Amino acid sequence: VSGARFTVTYAIAGDAAEAAAVARDVCIEQTVEYPEDLITDPAIRGEVFGRVESLVARAPGRHEARISYALDSVGSELTQLLNVVFGNSSLKPGLQVTHLELGPVLAARFRGPRFGVAGLRARLGRPRAPLLCSALKPLGLGPAALAALAYEEALGGIDVIKDDHGLADQPYARFAERVERCADAVRRAAAQTGRPCLYAPNVTAPAPLVAERARLAQRLGAGALLVAPGLVGFDAMRALADDDALALPILCHPALLGSFMVSPAQGLAPAVTLAELPRLAGADASIFPSYGGRFVFTPDECRAIARGAAAPMDGLAPLWPAPAGGMSLARVPEIVRFYGPDTLLLIGGDLHRHGSLRRGCELFRGLVEKA
Amino acid sequence: VSGARFTVTYAIAGDAAEAAAVARDVCIEQTVEYPEDLITDPAIRGEVFGRVESLVARAPGRHEARISYALDSVGSELTQLLNVVFGNSSLKPGLQVTHLELGPVLAARFRGPRFGVAGLRARLGRPRAPLLCSALKPLGLGPAALAALAYEEALGGIDVIKDDHGLADQPYARFAERVERCADAVRRAAAQTGRPCLYAPNVTAPAPLVAERARLAQRLGAGALLVAPGLVGFDAMRALADDDALALPILCHPALLGSFMVSPAQGLAPAVTLAELPRLAGADASIFPSYGGRFVFTPDECRAIARGAAAPMDGLAPLWPAPAGGMSLARVPEIVRFYGPDTLLLIGGDLHRHGSLRRGCELFRGLVEKA
Repeated sequence: VSGARFTVTYAIAGDAAEAAAVARDVCIEQTVEYPEDLITDPAIRGEVFGRVESLVARAPGRHEARISYALDSVGSELTQLLNVVFGNSSLKPGLQVTHLELGPVLAARFRGPRFGVAGLRARLGRPRAPLLCSALKPLGLGPAALAALAYEEALGGIDVIKDDHGLADQPYARFAERVERCADAVRRAAAQTGRPCLYAPNVTAPAPLVAERARLAQRLGAGALLVAPGLVGFDAMRALADDDALALPILCHPALLGSFMVSPAQGLAPAVTLAELPRLAGADASIFPSYGGRFVFTPDECRAIARGAAAPMDGLAPLWPAPAGGMSLARVPEIVRFYGPDTLLLIGGDLHRHGSLRRGCELFRGLVEKA
Repeated sequence: VSGARFTVTYAIAGDAAEAAAVARDVCIEQTVEYPEDLITDPAIRGEVFGRVESLVARAPGRHEARISYALDSVGSELTQLLNVVFGNSSLKPGLQVTHLELGPVLAARFRGPRFGVAGLRARLGRPRAPLLCSALKPLGLGPAALAALAYEEALGGIDVIKDDHGLADQPYARFAERVERCADAVRRAAAQTGRPCLYAPNVTAPAPLVAERARLAQRLGAGALLVAPGLVGFDAMRALADDDALALPILCHPALLGSFMVSPAQGLAPAVTLAELPRLAGADASIFPSYGGRFVFTPDECRAIARGAAAPMDGLAPLWPAPAGGMSLARVPEIVRFYGPDTLLLIGGDLHRHGSLRRGCELFRGLVEKA
């Protein structure tokens, strides 16, 4: 499909003239990265150069440029797509990626979420209402203690139980033993309740071990996988999601991705980092710090993430937004109102504040059923 | 070595009381990520919690905290080390990682640069003076045109010739054909000049293909490898660097890493992102945008990068700082004075402005020999 293009939206700080200059600079920096005046080949100038499709004022001192690039500059590799979108320009200030428009040809090169909203509902037998997620923590516990927590959470009605993202392969909580025990505990609890429950171990690991740990986790009975693309790269997550021999739901964790987006006018916008990219990379759910918790995203940023998770994306399935980061039972009604039913609600520490962990989970389940 | 700890320095925005609160928060967020009041186990409180080792004022409204963590929280995985250093705290504002102190026990778990400064000098037969690096560009050229550029650059006296980081596996410049032709061109030129010259193809690629491309590149005659850890993850670079069957010098490219550091008081400081982490991950040279070019790093930030590349780091070899990003021949004397002799000078487009590319390279060589 030579000649086909895809489009990236950038927010640019500055007045109209400054924004136009930055947009032109992005067209060169993200493609040929070479003195424009030395390039005479019309094919390179016409096709390879980025092209400003539109440039409009959005607010005082803030413009928005839509810039298109040739699909041929990307091929079909997610790593190179990220490079064309923002590789070198990430090193320049006053510039933020706010939206990706892949178009059907480029989008078809990516599978996207294998399960997504509908697939995870089907697997869990929960046709409506938000899903419940919790975590195994704190760091420092051994496999037996973590498995005991998993058992209580599964009995208490949690749908998806994930490892704390700090659980790796510590000497006191080795990956294989931890996953075996936790998966077994969740299986026993599910047999008791008669309801499916998915255990999602953290397979964020050194590059040569990610796939190996995922396969081991599957053999040991894991029902999903937790991955932090900020630590292993978005394409390592995509490779797991695309693996037909695994075929497990993928939860995306935002560790280290904050640097892409803490500054509100730079980097990759939260909706890109935590919804569009995870979706492109095949995540079925994306964990992010909700407004009102320990982190600083605004309600508007959270709304944009939820929109990016659900909006049409050239045929890629929607994923589950999973607001987290200091949520509490007291906030469940508000959070459900804000995000709606297709939400994976993640509460960690607060479930331990209600007598017993199982009781905390039952209260969580009750609040969600009522909301 | 239970009980052993390593230390991370954070710059914190705020007055003394604010900085103390942030430092305490980091101790919890980066470890147990759990309500502190619910943790009574003295082993977790005493060992697993981060510990504020010092907190000092550095400037009005800016403090510096040194926080230590248990080695057992990391084990020996670079992914988990990054997670403990900054995983969740990357999602909070006003906080910057400015220095890593691994200590000898943790550092010994990483090989670091296989070649480093001395090894690359030996391989190139250049016992003193800066090394010369250039790039094959612009994007849009096919394998034959890129190989012709490589040939001219090698004849002109360049030591290390790298792919443009935008060269991936495009339909018009497939990886295998491009690498074969460019490696062959560089080999022919080196036979003519009698001087070694290393060709460094870009092996930044989808996760399952990185190692495969590196091995193919080696078989085709590549003398080094270019990797962008912002696109594939730092640990994928480490795995390449550690591979004894490859044993090739690694050049680190900063694509997409800018988001970690464009804001001067947030994320990972340039010296951490572009010197300490690449060194820990085994890079032999780190390309970064120098002051005075198309990007915005200050001379102080560039000095810190160069210092981070060379300073003692618990036995890890020093790496080559490779200032780039809009360098020109006119600036060579100044750049050499600023960075000193152990510098890999990278000039791209400007070499094409001096009659012929070979002539541009010869002028570059002459200026460096004189400086």
